[in-house]
Amino acid sequence: MAKKPELDDFRVPFFDDKGKPAKFSPGEFDPGAKPFSSGTKEGDRERLAVIGALLDGLQERLHAQRVRRVLLVLQGMDTSGKDGTIRAVFREVDPLGLRIVPFKAPTPVEAAHDFLWRVHAQAPAAGELTIFNRSHYEDVLVPAVLGDIDADECARRYRHIREFEALLADSGTTLIKCMLHISKDEQKKRLQARIDDPTKHWKFDVADLDARKLWDKYQNAYQDALAATSTDYAPWYVIPADSKTHRNLMIAELLLRAFEGLKLEFPPAKDSLKGLKIE
Amino acid sequence: MAKKPELDDFRVPFFDDKGKPAKFSPGEFDPGAKPFSSGTKEGDRERLAVIGALLDGLQERLHAQRVRRVLLVLQGMDTSGKDGTIRAVFREVDPLGLRIVPFKAPTPVEAAHDFLWRVHAQAPAAGELTIFNRSHYEDVLVPAVLGDIDADECARRYRHIREFEALLADSGTTLIKCMLHISKDEQKKRLQARIDDPTKHWKFDVADLDARKLWDKYQNAYQDALAATSTDYAPWYVIPADSKTHRNLMIAELLLRAFEGLKLEFPPAKDSLKGLKIE
Repeated sequence: MAKKPELDDFRVPFFDDKGKPAKFSPGEFDPGAKPFSSGTKEGDRERLAVIGALLDGLQERLHAQRVRRVLLVLQGMDTSGKDGTIRAVFREVDPLGLRIVPFKAPTPVEAAHDFLWRVHAQAPAAGELTIFNRSHYEDVLVPAVLGDIDADECARRYRHIREFEALLADSGTTLIKCMLHISKDEQKKRLQARIDDPTKHWKFDVADLDARKLWDKYQNAYQDALAATSTDYAPWYVIPADSKTHRNLMIAELLLRAFEGLKLEFPPAKDSLKGLKIE
Repeated sequence: MAKKPELDDFRVPFFDDKGKPAKFSPGEFDPGAKPFSSGTKEGDRERLAVIGALLDGLQERLHAQRVRRVLLVLQGMDTSGKDGTIRAVFREVDPLGLRIVPFKAPTPVEAAHDFLWRVHAQAPAAGELTIFNRSHYEDVLVPAVLGDIDADECARRYRHIREFEALLADSGTTLIKCMLHISKDEQKKRLQARIDDPTKHWKFDVADLDARKLWDKYQNAYQDALAATSTDYAPWYVIPADSKTHRNLMIAELLLRAFEGLKLEFPPAKDSLKGLKIE
């Protein structure tokens, strides 16, 4: 009998400070897999709605306690579904409890600082659930592929990222990092659909296709970055993302497990309020 | 036959620069009124869902065009439903398209600047829909009630607010300001419900009841502030808010009308993408 898949089967092996990063390649994972599916889209959507409602209650406790922080990092090639994930997974969560931070190409002011400067400013505060829509990982992936930084500079940046994430973790932040893993074929379909719909053209620039031409280089850059920065305090997960429904479900399951691990409770009742009658 | 109620019946008369602010009192409005109800809660919720879906599509166009900005300001006494409004009205709207800014008591750094400094920093950018959960109005309401500023300083602040909001409007911002108007009796019920539920105690401090003791003073401060800052470019609306369902519906209708007035369209298709086939 085949082993039942577990979330941690999709975790990138941890970087070991004593040695080299573990061997890992996104190519080992099938972007079309649906390991956590109930078997039907309807079933998966029902489960997602259940998890969404649970996350809503857990987020309220996170906010009430104001001790822990949760940071979800979403990375992936164009059209891999970062925006769609945020919309679907957090549909049931109070928008007041959610902070979504999109990272675009650095502005001149941002580029005049170290690459973690703008990211640190957006780290979640106590009681916050924050989502990075792209992140500091763009600043190792893009320049590495374009040849703007060499292997030594990459290694330095990986180290800085590990230390930065260790600082966040030591300060009470739970980090979950997801690479939305789509196939080149699926990207083709999704890009073509955008081109064929004139109301979607505003999302699209011909220059966006340059990254697709460098597909293999980007896959290699992801491989290096994930292997060098997956740690026990900030693990990377590879999310098969050709199926949108399954992608949403799997990320929701990861978040649910992380939240449940925090043992969140409402703060104790206040004696000063006991039996109080409002006039 | 009674006249059918219109949204503008709940608009605070505009301040006229040539004269005194128009006569206006929140007491003229019944907090328990449901002028825009279909007659049933179910009907009102269905209509809210329809508006929510429309707002979602309109917000996408706002974002695509990146020209206009929309700012919704929510003010009201404790438990008047600012948080609940945000959750209910924007349930169907993409969380990526929404920025919610809560204003709390100023921090020492914020208090060391003029009262609009922290507010200006949070003004919506082109293409953004921003919600202020409380706002710069706290900085005229609270100090006025507590006697920390006199009538002259109040008048100066009202003028600064009018000029600040004129700057935002001249720069392409549509402003909608809502006072969530509840009765003292309804607040009593809602506060008591929080006290009777120990899991809600974290939201509550006995000191919160001080504002309730000053109820009439706050109503007067609202009256002065709204009369002095309701303008054609940044109108105030009084929202009867004893009924949560109706409160949500009325604010959604106001937003829908404002968005529809913007004549938002997707940017034109790009010639460079016409007939393009992805490799």
